Amino acid sequence: MKIYIIGIGLIGGSMALDIKNLHPSATVYGIDSNESHVKQALDLGVIDKAAQLEEVSNADFVIVSVPVDVALVLLPKVLDAIGDQSIVFEVGSTKAPICEAVAGHPKRRNFIATHPIAGTEFSGPSAAITNLYNGKTNIICEVERTAFKLQEKALDLFKSMGMRIRYMDPKSHDKHIAYVSHLSHISSFMLGKTVINKEKDEQDIFDMAGSGFESTVRLAKSSPAMWTPIFKQNKLEVVEALEGYIANLTQFKDFLIQDEYNAIFDEMESVNKIKEILNGMNVKK
Amino acid sequence: MKIYIIGIGLIGGSMALDIKNLHPSATVYGIDSNESHVKQALDLGVIDKAAQLEEVSNADFVIVSVPVDVALVLLPKVLDAIGDQSIVFEVGSTKAPICEAVAGHPKRRNFIATHPIAGTEFSGPSAAITNLYNGKTNIICEVERTAFKLQEKALDLFKSMGMRIRYMDPKSHDKHIAYVSHLSHISSFMLGKTVINKEKDEQDIFDMAGSGFESTVRLAKSSPAMWTPIFKQNKLEVVEALEGYIANLTQFKDFLIQDEYNAIFDEMESVNKIKEILNGMNVKK
Repeated sequence: MKIYIIGIGLIGGSMALDIKNLHPSATVYGIDSNESHVKQALDLGVIDKAAQLEEVSNADFVIVSVPVDVALVLLPKVLDAIGDQSIVFEVGSTKAPICEAVAGHPKRRNFIATHPIAGTEFSGPSAAITNLYNGKTNIICEVERTAFKLQEKALDLFKSMGMRIRYMDPKSHDKHIAYVSHLSHISSFMLGKTVINKEKDEQDIFDMAGSGFESTVRLAKSSPAMWTPIFKQNKLEVVEALEGYIANLTQFKDFLIQDEYNAIFDEMESVNKIKEILNGMNVKK
Repeated sequence: MKIYIIGIGLIGGSMALDIKNLHPSATVYGIDSNESHVKQALDLGVIDKAAQLEEVSNADFVIVSVPVDVALVLLPKVLDAIGDQSIVFEVGSTKAPICEAVAGHPKRRNFIATHPIAGTEFSGPSAAITNLYNGKTNIICEVERTAFKLQEKALDLFKSMGMRIRYMDPKSHDKHIAYVSHLSHISSFMLGKTVINKEKDEQDIFDMAGSGFESTVRLAKSSPAMWTPIFKQNKLEVVEALEGYIANLTQFKDFLIQDEYNAIFDEMESVNKIKEILNGMNVKK
């Protein structure tokens, strides 16, 4: 089995590690515009060999795990280069623009649009870890537009990594993910900014910040190169989510200014049911 | 040694467990207006005996770990009831109103104002855990207003639990903590609200939410009964922190609307230094 990973970072690299564990006879080829990432991935054993895009014609799988703006340009070229038996999948956090970018391609049926909901705040080949996808959800969009035999091949791979499959149309994916993922990242980045701006003397942050602060700003470590194009591609949904969030924060602030403490208590109590939602998530995992 | 814990929840209960480990001969008495909490704390071995406020005259330590609105009323009564050798400390998340409430009390020198920066999102006696305070910071306010011998006694206890001590005036404490703790809680509650309101069908949240969402909304599990009076007592600082946060979110949203993606990249990149700040926190711990 020949697997090509284009973009050897957290997501692609972690897929490579799982595939090597599941299929010891597979050869994992790595393609990355960043030469030092290729070298690092070879040194770490994340990939077996470095490769070039032109070589993918004999691939079983091509995994495209690059920033979503790069994916728009790269995916048609990858589809141009593959053979008939190859299946290409892309793993980014937006799905409608990606699906549009390949909609008219003659090899559209060799492509499957996916979003494995997994990750950490780290990036690059050194962030790759085994078992990242076990118990996680993989959202697949427009499955009917992928050739049936190739669907099967991809689903077998995802299931062997321990992923649950959920089907969704690209627009619904982008709408929901704006709320449960993209908004969390912005809330975290802007919380970090607010505190850093206020606390010029960082020592005060070290000394007074507890695990709660750490938890809420964890995502502010994420890669701007990865996230800027996600926000760009999902602009309308993200703006709507942000507007809702800002309105809720403003109402909370107004309750405080007006000494409406019963309303503040009620707001928090009604959100407490997030406990059960999060417990549900953990049961799932 | 006789220790009285008034309010046997996460904070007071965890102190009780550490004290029992450090001082096996100590007797830990529990006082709580909630009878079922007293029973639960006895059953779990968090306290040795139930007690009433009138009994504290022979206490070595009285730990007041109740919601901060209750503390304002209760602390003067506790000081009225203790003996000359007793030291009373309170552990809530606001310090200026607490210090004011006891400022003129004849036994002010038997009181030490503290804020151990430790906790989880859980509450009640069953949330008590050992070693919660190890490696954490304890902020002490107006230390010069506590009798020297009693300061020493309290500091020995805090240090034996593994806490780092930092001194601060109550107003500075309340200002900084609004940013590094109170704001995180509101950001988390309102993020949870925004997503719950949007996602009426909760199954969509389960399936699409990853560990990032979980991390940013973790604090939305916190107790409204504990947090409402904190926000009330620290209203002015919290409103200011919220205004800064809302302004930053609004600017980010405006950059998106105006397609200013370089500005969005720069915003995120400049906040990325939170990595080093959080690493500093972890080295400290």
